[in-house]
Amino acid sequence: MTDLWQNAMDHAVALAKKAGSLVRDAVQNDMKVMLKSSSVDLVTKTDQMVEQLIIDSVKEKFPTHSFIGEESVAAGEPCVLTDNPTWIVDPVDGTTNFVHGYPFVAVSIGFAVNRKLEFGVVYSCIEDKMYTARKGKGAFCNGLLLNVSDQKEISQSIIATEFGSNRDTEVVDKIFSSMRKILCLPIHGIRGVGTAATNMCLVASGCVEAYYEIGIHCWDIAAGAIIVTEAGGVLMDVDGTSLYIPDST
Amino acid sequence: MTDLWQNAMDHAVALAKKAGSLVRDAVQNDMKVMLKSSSVDLVTKTDQMVEQLIIDSVKEKFPTHSFIGEESVAAGEPCVLTDNPTWIVDPVDGTTNFVHGYPFVAVSIGFAVNRKLEFGVVYSCIEDKMYTARKGKGAFCNGLLLNVSDQKEISQSIIATEFGSNRDTEVVDKIFSSMRKILCLPIHGIRGVGTAATNMCLVASGCVEAYYEIGIHCWDIAAGAIIVTEAGGVLMDVDGTSLYIPDST
Repeated sequence: MTDLWQNAMDHAVALAKKAGSLVRDAVQNDMKVMLKSSSVDLVTKTDQMVEQLIIDSVKEKFPTHSFIGEESVAAGEPCVLTDNPTWIVDPVDGTTNFVHGYPFVAVSIGFAVNRKLEFGVVYSCIEDKMYTARKGKGAFCNGLLLNVSDQKEISQSIIATEFGSNRDTEVVDKIFSSMRKILCLPIHGIRGVGTAATNMCLVASGCVEAYYEIGIHCWDIAAGAIIVTEAGGVLMDVDGTSLYIPDST
Repeated sequence: MTDLWQNAMDHAVALAKKAGSLVRDAVQNDMKVMLKSSSVDLVTKTDQMVEQLIIDSVKEKFPTHSFIGEESVAAGEPCVLTDNPTWIVDPVDGTTNFVHGYPFVAVSIGFAVNRKLEFGVVYSCIEDKMYTARKGKGAFCNGLLLNVSDQKEISQSIIATEFGSNRDTEVVDKIFSSMRKILCLPIHGIRGVGTAATNMCLVASGCVEAYYEIGIHCWDIAAGAIIVTEAGGVLMDVDGTSLYIPDST
């Protein structure tokens, strides 16, 4: 039964590559449009187009599978994980980066069966880095095996996080106070490339020791979650309990 | 006289490429050494080796030229800019990234004559991106012309900055309070890749609107400065006056 989902994973990689090239084209060709007119519209247009491409292709090839996607949920579709094989998709992770052409934008495709992740694919499309992981088979970037850092000392670590997009005083207070506490433990530094999926892949690659963020959705982290665990990392909630991805929506 | 310094610039690009490949090899091959033993030693070793390589090569080819380099200054050499043609070098910009294999480490070579920058070369060696600019000739990344963002609204901007390596309460207070003020203007976001030279190249590329940092040295920004101005950007001190690079040491 080891190859049960290999077909689906191969399809996910091909889809991520195709979707990523559409996203990359949009970033590179439409930058002037974005800067001149409404960048929000263009992001939404690309998000929706890419998600529809993925949905249509999955439905055609795997008609019995379920689907949870950022744009579908925004459009009113239910966000419920069942035992059914389910594709959990963020078509454009890093929308602020997308608008500015900041070179970290990812297509994120996670796949769960019986509410457990079977594989994850994160395509960081501007860098052209394809991160993949399959349960029990390890995590890879462009075919190279990934391992999380073996650094045990927090004082020798880089932690990834983000400022987020919420500018409410209370939320910003919380974000800054956490960052400051962590920075002054002290640690080597704080980094963040502006997408949850890619930040998780940087953990898997071992170049940052950990990543945390408050207020993200299952489609942001489903693929990254299995990439991190297959690279030898762990996932946990802020209280130290294990993070059950599908409940984090 | 337009080609007067083209020879020197060609040499700088070749040197940056050679130095960058040494740095990249050190990052990729010595990661395990770094994580196990003293990473500081390895950084210093690579820094010094690469700077010496650049000094030796420049002295051989341009024996009358002067040199300002991070490691030479640290070793007690004077840091004085004269009218003489002067190479201003940071052999490894982004030392924390270097230690962790975080994929932004740059070799930065600026060149000034009569205390004015003639060209700048920043080689972001892990990404393999060669940024170059020559006075009056534009700025380029791997041969492609760069232009700063034409965004006029700060509220539609991404600003690059860094937390820095100083963990003194007063310094950290200042850094956090500036970041918070700027984030809540509001702006689209704050980013930073962990090297001054590369942050300046991201400004030149137009994917962040501005970059600021307190407490950097001339070798961090000399090359980046002319790359930004040749891409259509401006440099200024925090009080709005023009930034005279060589005085910023």
